Amino acid sequence: MTNEAGAVRRGRRAGGGAARRAERTATRFEFSRFITRNVPDLEVLNAEALEIIEANAETLLQEVGVNFVDNPSALALWKDAGADIDGERVRIPKGLARQLCATAPSTFTQHARNPERNVEIGGRNLVLAPVYGPPFVRDLAGGRRYATIEDFRNFVKLGQMSKWLHHSGGTVCEPTDVAVNKRHLDMLHAHMTLSDKPYMGSVTLPERAEDSIEMSRIVFGSDFVDQHTVMTSLVNINSPLTFDSVMMGALEVYARANQAAIISPFIVGGAMAPVTVAGTLTQVLAEVMAGVAYSQLIRTGAPVVFGAFVTSIDMNSGAPTFGTPEAAQITLGAGQLARRLGLPYRSAGSFCGSKLPDAQAGYETANSLNIGLLSGVNFMLHACGWLEGGLVSSYEKYVMDADQLGVLHKMAAGIDLSTNGQGMDAIREVGPGGHYLGCSHTQENYKDAFWRSGVLDYKPFETWEEEGARDTSALAQQKVQKMLGEYQAPGLDPGISEALDDYILRKKAAVPDSFV
Amino acid sequence: MTNEAGAVRRGRRAGGGAARRAERTATRFEFSRFITRNVPDLEVLNAEALEIIEANAETLLQEVGVNFVDNPSALALWKDAGADIDGERVRIPKGLARQLCATAPSTFTQHARNPERNVEIGGRNLVLAPVYGPPFVRDLAGGRRYATIEDFRNFVKLGQMSKWLHHSGGTVCEPTDVAVNKRHLDMLHAHMTLSDKPYMGSVTLPERAEDSIEMSRIVFGSDFVDQHTVMTSLVNINSPLTFDSVMMGALEVYARANQAAIISPFIVGGAMAPVTVAGTLTQVLAEVMAGVAYSQLIRTGAPVVFGAFVTSIDMNSGAPTFGTPEAAQITLGAGQLARRLGLPYRSAGSFCGSKLPDAQAGYETANSLNIGLLSGVNFMLHACGWLEGGLVSSYEKYVMDADQLGVLHKMAAGIDLSTNGQGMDAIREVGPGGHYLGCSHTQENYKDAFWRSGVLDYKPFETWEEEGARDTSALAQQKVQKMLGEYQAPGLDPGISEALDDYILRKKAAVPDSFV
Repeated sequence: MTNEAGAVRRGRRAGGGAARRAERTATRFEFSRFITRNVPDLEVLNAEALEIIEANAETLLQEVGVNFVDNPSALALWKDAGADIDGERVRIPKGLARQLCATAPSTFTQHARNPERNVEIGGRNLVLAPVYGPPFVRDLAGGRRYATIEDFRNFVKLGQMSKWLHHSGGTVCEPTDVAVNKRHLDMLHAHMTLSDKPYMGSVTLPERAEDSIEMSRIVFGSDFVDQHTVMTSLVNINSPLTFDSVMMGALEVYARANQAAIISPFIVGGAMAPVTVAGTLTQVLAEVMAGVAYSQLIRTGAPVVFGAFVTSIDMNSGAPTFGTPEAAQITLGAGQLARRLGLPYRSAGSFCGSKLPDAQAGYETANSLNIGLLSGVNFMLHACGWLEGGLVSSYEKYVMDADQLGVLHKMAAGIDLSTNGQGMDAIREVGPGGHYLGCSHTQENYKDAFWRSGVLDYKPFETWEEEGARDTSALAQQKVQKMLGEYQAPGLDPGISEALDDYILRKKAAVPDSFV
Repeated sequence: MTNEAGAVRRGRRAGGGAARRAERTATRFEFSRFITRNVPDLEVLNAEALEIIEANAETLLQEVGVNFVDNPSALALWKDAGADIDGERVRIPKGLARQLCATAPSTFTQHARNPERNVEIGGRNLVLAPVYGPPFVRDLAGGRRYATIEDFRNFVKLGQMSKWLHHSGGTVCEPTDVAVNKRHLDMLHAHMTLSDKPYMGSVTLPERAEDSIEMSRIVFGSDFVDQHTVMTSLVNINSPLTFDSVMMGALEVYARANQAAIISPFIVGGAMAPVTVAGTLTQVLAEVMAGVAYSQLIRTGAPVVFGAFVTSIDMNSGAPTFGTPEAAQITLGAGQLARRLGLPYRSAGSFCGSKLPDAQAGYETANSLNIGLLSGVNFMLHACGWLEGGLVSSYEKYVMDADQLGVLHKMAAGIDLSTNGQGMDAIREVGPGGHYLGCSHTQENYKDAFWRSGVLDYKPFETWEEEGARDTSALAQQKVQKMLGEYQAPGLDPGISEALDDYILRKKAAVPDSFV
């Protein structure tokens, strides 16, 4: 009988059912507040470089402009604001986009149904959210396969259980077994019932954004949603310089309702942007400024985030590549541009091109996570679980990455310079040739002194070998099983639960299934 | 017949043997100059924190002092310099150590036998050297086993073939099949004959340091060695605060000969230093200042490097841990302290605790390599090949890490803000909704635009699966075999080669083998 089992048994003898459940819950749902960075930003662009890029972006907006496709009302808004309209092309006079961006808040609160899980997006904060969008999943036992709604629910459960993750995310994988025109309902339902962390809304059609708001009204109450931001959703720009009506439609719905949107170029450098870092940064800035300006034309003061999803391309295979130095430079540079615009910033993530959660995945992901912290990212989507260039949500990599997010928390906390932190008494006590393991300073501080992985192997070689010489994937597989086995749903008012079910049933019955 | 084979065949027809060899050498031995960092240092300590740590270090040196063990001549030198001597304890009055450190050069050239491989250690430069010290090796085919001289030679060959590696290193693994009292001769011989990059000397006894200098005299000529630094060797401090006579003996030999030494605390935080970051930094600074000051007492102006090998400890297993946030903070902070002392800085490396070159190895190593670049490291020992907390030199991880060093090169180069870099013509040419793959700017720049891995997988999923669904280890294994298969020794004057052989034969014959 291990100590842990002993503790459970004692618990069973000592307390009632509710007390035991509370104890178990307290143990199992460890939760860390969003990060507030006490480390400096890494600034790779000097003042001159920043001014060149900003001037170039304004020049692009004025001379080349952007396209708002199939969107006459957007063209009308832009015209009234003073832009030059030519067909679907919107040319924005220098200074106008920046002026419009100024009304967007520099920081906002996204509320969760559990107020302890609220997040502040902007400033020195960093909010971590899981992978978004993959049509496939992979696990060690079953390999690579199309994702289902069961996978989706599993990933939401893992998110709820992940200590260092602040946000439940959005499309943690595509539930391909549910009709395309109905799956957003099931996805939202999973986030709303299986997690009490904040979540993202649907963006794949304006009416799905409306559904997201309606369902949020059920969870939070209508008045609350009218007065508070309860979703941060992902609105991609069709780079280069194109704003399609589907994504803009979702943006319009969310902005009108004062719900937040990440306005984000989606760029594979060399394909959707120039092959150079400065060229890509210029295009990113022009695109984000146009998108954010548009959000402010919809509703002055609507909360938005400066997004930059940027990878480079492998010129041999045409595949997007991740964890590369060019992506790092763009991520860092875009952070500087976002701060100068006074906008919250979204970038980085657990990016890798690897097909497996192997060493390549580790290198590429760590490169990207580290740069994300240092570039001043405020909202990191894809912070765990990303595999194979975003085609796959990996169970094992999800928990491996989520564990590494603890490194970012500790790094961001900065260095303790208190008297205890200085440790002079310890050095005096131990002196030359001694050791610190038993000294009083160590005894008092060792529990919190060092960040400790909950997944990786720290065992002596012999123990590790006796236990099967497992690699990280195998250790992570065990962790996934443990987390899903121990998962408990956060409490939800039965009336809310029924109302959500009713809403979904009604919406699903209203139209036939569509898989396109 | 591939294009490459065609090129070789054409070469055979067209030119003589020497021309063919030159052509092959040119293709196979790609080489990158040491890094000059065009990125800012990441400063995690503010001015107040730096002053606290510096004042505390001076207090420690004065009040607690350091031990110089079994070393009466060191005690005498310290006494003459104004220190307080009490048995083996040396208490250094405030200001004295810093004053002595001031005569050490802030940068120096280490010469290689091929002048193109010379390295500048200090300033904004970063020199990368391979793993040092493991008694074991591991490869995918043979698993983990004691290292032999054949392994040693293989690792030197891999170093010579590694484009992003600037330095051949020292004990790339311990050749355990050679007598302890003779293996330094075989190790030096391997570096001197199988590589033309700079190398490290032996430090395990003063007379082995003498051998290192004598053999260097054979390679470079006596006059050259008298006037130039041709070795940078690793002198560890016995933390806490202890300088043993073996390491100090080697330091004395090298400093007298104007050969460089890295003076480096070897710290597992919580065991050899306080569990707090600021406490460890204080001890590191005190130790390095005492060691560097001593080197200047031996010879004013002797080239030295501020070293910091620092890990944290897992308080559960007692194992050292790597790639952790506390180690990162110490690495960054020590870099700031080294720059304020005006000394070249050695830290970081391909550190990991993993037993295998798996995802854990990738995360931990990338964490450490990234921080190494940003902490302003000038000499990065262990930059590739480190596995299992330094117990193992891994063939596969060596080439995986050496490949990732390319990321550091590209990151360090900074962002091109030239007209071509700004790419405005490309954006104008492509416009909204277009793509950049075929535009003239892409055609002109794509070859050098993006760093490209020589090991990792960038292939489409289907191709990758057809080729065996290999993980990073398997891809690296193939790369190791290819590199060792294609290795060619750099030319060496036959007279030098014979003289080296003679020296080693004579030294080996003079004493019986010892394996302790």
